[in-house]
Formats: sequence, C-alpha cells, structure tokens
Amino acid sequence: MSDFIADLQRKTLPAHAQLWPDTATVDANGRLRLAGIDASAPAHEYGTPLYVFDEATLRGQCQSFRRAFAQRWPESAIAYAGKAYLAPALCALLAEEGLELDTVSAGEFGVALASGYPAARIHLHGNFKPDAELAAALDAGIGRIVVDSLDELARVEALAREQGRPAAIWLRLCPDVPTETHAYTQTGHADSKFGLDVASGVADEAAARAIASPWLDLAGLHAHVGSQLFDMRPAAEVVTFLCAFAARLRDEHGANIRELSPGGGLGVAYASDKIAPTIDEYAEAVTDALHAAIERHRLASPRLIVEPGRAIVARAGVALYTVGPRKAVPGGTTFVAVDGGMGENPRPALYGVRYTAVLAERMRAPAAETVRIVGRYCESGDVLVEAAELPVAAPGELLAIPVSGAYHLPMASNYNLVPRPAVVWVRDGQARLARRRETLDDLLRLEQS
Amino acid sequence: MSDFIADLQRKTLPAHAQLWPDTATVDANGRLRLAGIDASAPAHEYGTPLYVFDEATLRGQCQSFRRAFAQRWPESAIAYAGKAYLAPALCALLAEEGLELDTVSAGEFGVALASGYPAARIHLHGNFKPDAELAAALDAGIGRIVVDSLDELARVEALAREQGRPAAIWLRLCPDVPTETHAYTQTGHADSKFGLDVASGVADEAAARAIASPWLDLAGLHAHVGSQLFDMRPAAEVVTFLCAFAARLRDEHGANIRELSPGGGLGVAYASDKIAPTIDEYAEAVTDALHAAIERHRLASPRLIVEPGRAIVARAGVALYTVGPRKAVPGGTTFVAVDGGMGENPRPALYGVRYTAVLAERMRAPAAETVRIVGRYCESGDVLVEAAELPVAAPGELLAIPVSGAYHLPMASNYNLVPRPAVVWVRDGQARLARRRETLDDLLRLEQS
Repeated sequence: MSDFIADLQRKTLPAHAQLWPDTATVDANGRLRLAGIDASAPAHEYGTPLYVFDEATLRGQCQSFRRAFAQRWPESAIAYAGKAYLAPALCALLAEEGLELDTVSAGEFGVALASGYPAARIHLHGNFKPDAELAAALDAGIGRIVVDSLDELARVEALAREQGRPAAIWLRLCPDVPTETHAYTQTGHADSKFGLDVASGVADEAAARAIASPWLDLAGLHAHVGSQLFDMRPAAEVVTFLCAFAARLRDEHGANIRELSPGGGLGVAYASDKIAPTIDEYAEAVTDALHAAIERHRLASPRLIVEPGRAIVARAGVALYTVGPRKAVPGGTTFVAVDGGMGENPRPALYGVRYTAVLAERMRAPAAETVRIVGRYCESGDVLVEAAELPVAAPGELLAIPVSGAYHLPMASNYNLVPRPAVVWVRDGQARLARRRETLDDLLRLEQS
Repeated sequence: MSDFIADLQRKTLPAHAQLWPDTATVDANGRLRLAGIDASAPAHEYGTPLYVFDEATLRGQCQSFRRAFAQRWPESAIAYAGKAYLAPALCALLAEEGLELDTVSAGEFGVALASGYPAARIHLHGNFKPDAELAAALDAGIGRIVVDSLDELARVEALAREQGRPAAIWLRLCPDVPTETHAYTQTGHADSKFGLDVASGVADEAAARAIASPWLDLAGLHAHVGSQLFDMRPAAEVVTFLCAFAARLRDEHGANIRELSPGGGLGVAYASDKIAPTIDEYAEAVTDALHAAIERHRLASPRLIVEPGRAIVARAGVALYTVGPRKAVPGGTTFVAVDGGMGENPRPALYGVRYTAVLAERMRAPAAETVRIVGRYCESGDVLVEAAELPVAAPGELLAIPVSGAYHLPMASNYNLVPRPAVVWVRDGQARLARRRETLDDLLRLEQS
C-alpha cells in the first residue's frame, strides 16, 4: 500500500486517487485525513463501523456531471438515482446542486419530499409500483411517472382521470435482441423484467395508447442498459435506440417526444487495478450518439436526462472499522476481523465485489502480508476484502475501506441483530452526524409482543 | 402444482408436505389455510408483503428436537440459533418450550433479555465480540461465552477478573484438515475465520490457559460443521472430533469437560425435489457418534447441546405477496412481479436458493405455465423464484412462498427505501400482529438532518 500513499499525495497516478474522496490526504504522521479531519476523530466520537461522506466530493461529482453534459448538450439534466443511497442530507445537497431525482418507491420519493425536495423534479421508476404508491406520487405532483408495463399504463391513466389532471409519463423501453444487436443486449437485457418490449409491439401499443389518452402526457422515453459500465458503447447505443423509437412515434403517430433518458450506469472502480471512464468520456459518448441520431432522424432536439447514482456517491463514502481478532491458519488464510461486515455491506457476498483496505492511522507503514478482511457476522461468506495488502493489523486499529458510498447503507440489514451504522458528513474541517447509530430500542420498537 | 395440493390434503408424499407448516390445509374452495385461517385474511388486514408464522409448527419443531435427543441422550439440551430469526414473541415461545438460546451479538442477547429470556440459558457465540458486548454479556450473566480466539480468551479473563466472578466458557474449535480427514473439512472448514485452530496447537494453548485461570471455567467444547447439512456424516464426525479433544484435555490436563456442542446445521428443503433428513435421523447420527466416542475414550458422560436454527423456524414461516404486472418476453422468460423481493428475501440472490410458490387463493387450479417470480426492486437480480409452475397469475392475486421463516427477516434491508414487512403469528384460528410494518417515519427517524 505504500504506492497508494505516494499516489494519494502526489496524485501522479489516477488508479489509486480514483478510489478516495477528493479531500483525502495523508498527514505527516501517516494518518488518513478526510476534509481536513483525522479519520479517527469521528470514529472515536461516534464509534465504528462508521460511514463518512465527503461533501466536497459529492458536490464535485454533481457539478462535473452537470458541466460535462451541459457543455455538450445544453438542454440536459442530471437525475440522481436514489437507489444508490438516499437520505435527507443528500436530498438537500442534490437540490442545491440543481439535480433532478430518480426514485423507485414511495419510500424514496417520500424521504425526498420530507426533505423539501421539489416534487416536480422527482421521477418515479420501477417495474412494479403498487396502486397506493402510484396514487401518492400523482397526488404529490411527482414530475414524471416512468411507465413500465401496459398494466401500469392503464392504472396511471385511471388515477390521472380520477384526479382530473393529466399525468406526465415516460415509457420505459426494453430494447429487443432480434432486431437490435447492441452490445448491452448480449448481457441478457432483452430478457428483463423491466420495460415495454419493442420486438413484440408492446412498446408501440403503449405509446399509441398514451398518445391517444387525454389523461396521459407522453413526455419522454427511457431505457437503461445496466450498471457498472466500463465500456461506453452500450451507453451510446441506447441513445441511438431511443432516438430511433422517437422518430417512429413521430412518423407513425405525429408524436413529439420532448425528453430522452438513457438511464445511468457509469462504472466506478472499487480497486486500483481498474480505471473507470471519466464523466467527460461518458458525456462525450452519450451526446455524440445523440447528435448523430438527431441529425439522422431529423428529430426536434429533445431534453436529455442522465441518471447517475453510484458515480456520484460511491467514492464520496469511506467505511471505518475497528480491527478485532486476527487468525492465521497454518498453510491457509490469515483472517483479520473487523466490527462490521455483510450486515452493512453485503456487496462482496452478493456481487463478488473486490474492495481494498488501509490502516487509517498507519498509511505509510509498508504492507507486510496479504490478509482476508472478514466481518463479525456468523457466516463464512462474511468477507469484506478477499485479499488486502496490509501492515500487521493489531486489535483496536482503525481500518478504512474506500468507495463505500453507494449500495452499502441502502442494502444494510440488522442481520445477527447488529444495529446499522452511524453516518457522518465531513466538510472544511467539520464533522456532523447525519444519521445516528441504531440502538437496541430501535431493534425492538416495531415488535408488538 | 396440482400434485402438491393432493399431497397437502392426503399427506401421502413427504416431499411437498415438508415445505409447509403443520397446520397448512386447502379448503373446499381451493384456498390456503394456515392454523385454520384463510391466508388472505391477515394479508388483507395487514397488507403485503407479509410474513406469517405458524405457532404450532414452531412448538412442534422445538418439541421434536427435545424429544429426539432426550430419548437418545437424556442429558441434552436444544439451544435455538437465534441468527435464523429472533424476536420477542419467539423468545417467549422458546423459553416456554424449554430451549436454550444461541446468540451472536449484544443485539441478539439484548432482545432475548428484554423479552424476559433467562440469561443463564443464553450462550454467546461469534468470531469477534467487541469489548462492550463481552462486558455486557458478563454483566448480564449470560450462561456461556463461546471463546473463538486467544485474543478473546484474554479479554474474557480480564473482564471476569474485573467483575470478580469467573466466566463459564466453551472453546470453539476449528477441526484441522491435515490430521482429521472428515468430510466437512473438505468444504474448506479448516480455512475458516471461526474457532481455535487445532493443528497448530492454538486450541491446546487456549485450553491450557483456560484450565489454569481462576477466572475461567472451561465448561465445554464447541464446533460447527456448517449449514444446510443433508448428509449426516459430518454431524457425527464433529461429535467424534469433540470427544477426542475432550479426552486429550483430560489426559494431558486432568480437565473434566462437562458439555459438548456439535453446533447445528440440519438441512431444510426449500423445494419439493429434495428431502431433508428427519430430526430423528439427525439425533440418531449425533448420539450414535457420541455413545461410541464416549465409550472409546472412557469419557465421563457430558451434557450434549445441539443448536438448530433453520430447522426450527424455516418451515413455520410463509411469505405472502400481492401479484403485480406480468411480462412475457417473446421467446424468453415470463415474469410475474410481486410487491416484495430481494429487500426482505435476499437469499436467492445471495445463495442461489430455489423456492417454490403457489397462488394462495387458487390452490387447485392447474399449472398453466412456468414463470419467474421477480420482486419490485430496481435490480435484475431481484428474483424470488427462478421457475414457478403456476396458473396464469392476475394482478391482485395472493402469492405464497413456503419455507420463509429463516434468514429472510433477519437479512431484510430497506433497499429502495421499501419498508420492511409486517409479521403475523397464527394459532388456533387466531392471527395476531407480532411486528408492525415499517413506515416512512421509521425510515426517517435515525436521520439527523
């Protein structure tokens, strides 16, 4: 890890720097600092496991996305994909940074509304939106309902009629394998639970019904090609696909599709052996495809809405743990246990993600061994880092895992009845508690007997 | 699924019956009943997704375990492994049924103590018990601390000395591959984060230290060979292993090991193509091995503590969902969405578990198609049942998934900010709410800004 320290300080290699918040530094004593704060300070104050979010990185990512797209396609918006992580503090920041918000449940748009996020700038996605959630969304004035099925189209229309107010919708399209041999469809995208099938005519039927209905305003088209994209071709191809469909709706129905959303999915590196595309490379790929397709089809210029989630929050978050017992199996693995694990980060178990780790108070100490960082949960699959190069870690030391801002806390459980961690935000030398740690009372309060 | 109905009614084939609670029946109108209640009644009252636990099955499993072992080894106890599912209502039932309780965190023993469960009948397991949790356990008088490492042994000893009261401990042993070629070690058990390594002498060192300390009472030995055992040989072999180690401690240290715990792990069938061993077969395997090893080593007869979790609660729980949109991909998969998914049951995504499903209000309708039951979460991996044979399911119908009592609720998250489900217990025609559904307020209450 000594290379990593050098990288962090000199910023000469993008590989390691891309794993850490913008404000991460190593001080003269070899200690990790985040936004000017010794990482151990909030760990001592609020305990571990602790999630630290760097506000500067969050704002920087929001601004980079907005700028990268606005430069290339002025009529563009960035809608943050809330499923990556959503909380009131983040909603406030997103609103200030001028982002729109992509939600997938009444819980998500409910948290946003409770945080003062403007309803008109919220979109509601999802393959199954129960009636009560759809009605609540329309009641609240959620800006766009992204319709996923014919069944849902009928339900949205009925609700809009009841309310006496047309609903602005997008149609989520599912690109088809037989006629479009895009790279992303090779990942099985066409055989997906999401979206209106194009090949069978279901998508056209939905569009025709929406165009004909006085209670539906077909504002836009949406498709999403998947997550963790490192190859930009699918991101471009989905734009091409959306434009072709919009052109057909114009030609066959006289429809004017005003908005196109090619989803999100820009990849993020979790370890230093991969380098993710930059936001500019992503914006270039998407807008190049859009320019070309608009020209080819002579389409009226649409508003472009891009939906990054992970790419905005992942690197802003650092997970802090206290080291516990160490176990060296003769001829086998050396295990270093920490006081968290698969309860608040099931991603290694779910997706096989390989993280890295450092000792936050001994960043300059040379690596002495390769260890497996395991959690405290009663399960063999409770692994956080399969192979970490570390100095010999003693019980009580502080271990940090970068790129922890996305899909950890949202997927955290109370497995083994371990309370979920606290969350701290850091900015300009100040730390503030954004979410308190759960307590035993919290674990009990829903129980009725 | 028509075969399944016949099975349920005639109980002629064990394959399907073993998936459902003891009180499950199908009424004259083809509707699923649990404990004499139409399954749709609690679903309508409390909403879906809903978890229903059948109290008769829970008590029956507890009693079957106690009887099966007591008949064959009178000095035996059943310690329920709380990580499978733990809640106040269950703690009360376990206490009434005379079970002991295996916990793995301050949250688990805290919930048990708050529910009035006697501290002396609780054990504390875990590869990493933070200092505060160990101290709380000793303060509360938790009956047995299961020591997992030399580091922990020293910490328990220091805490016991501080308290002026010796701590009763078990040592968790990790069987070694080189000298013991048991079947279970072939699953990689020796290269585990859990337990004191035997081959390297660490286990012997821990035992010698414990025996020498006035602050530690080495009451027993523990090992666990893994979960979901369908082959009983490993369950027997771990008993043989524990007895051999106890004999060595007697021979070399004059120690009298009074308790042996071969863990749990009895397998459970999730679908009808597998038949799990019976509790009697399991008890037979364990106690046969114990009888043989005791005789071979001329050991004083120990108390036997067995730790089933899944085998007690899995079949007692049924998950109920409301069917949503259906999507048939031409030439591909037919998807039926329900209003839950990987948020409250990540097990298919985590472990590839294959569940079955039925339409609870049309149990006699013949299967018409094979569908993939997917959830409402914004993720392609959100699959509950990979291939379910069902009548054509219409939106609004009630879908039931059996064998949902273990490792669903404990691993449930608020992914997509979907509130976690309510839990209902049924008995003798009565349903009572055991845990209320989360609300938006619950999702917000830990947030500080």
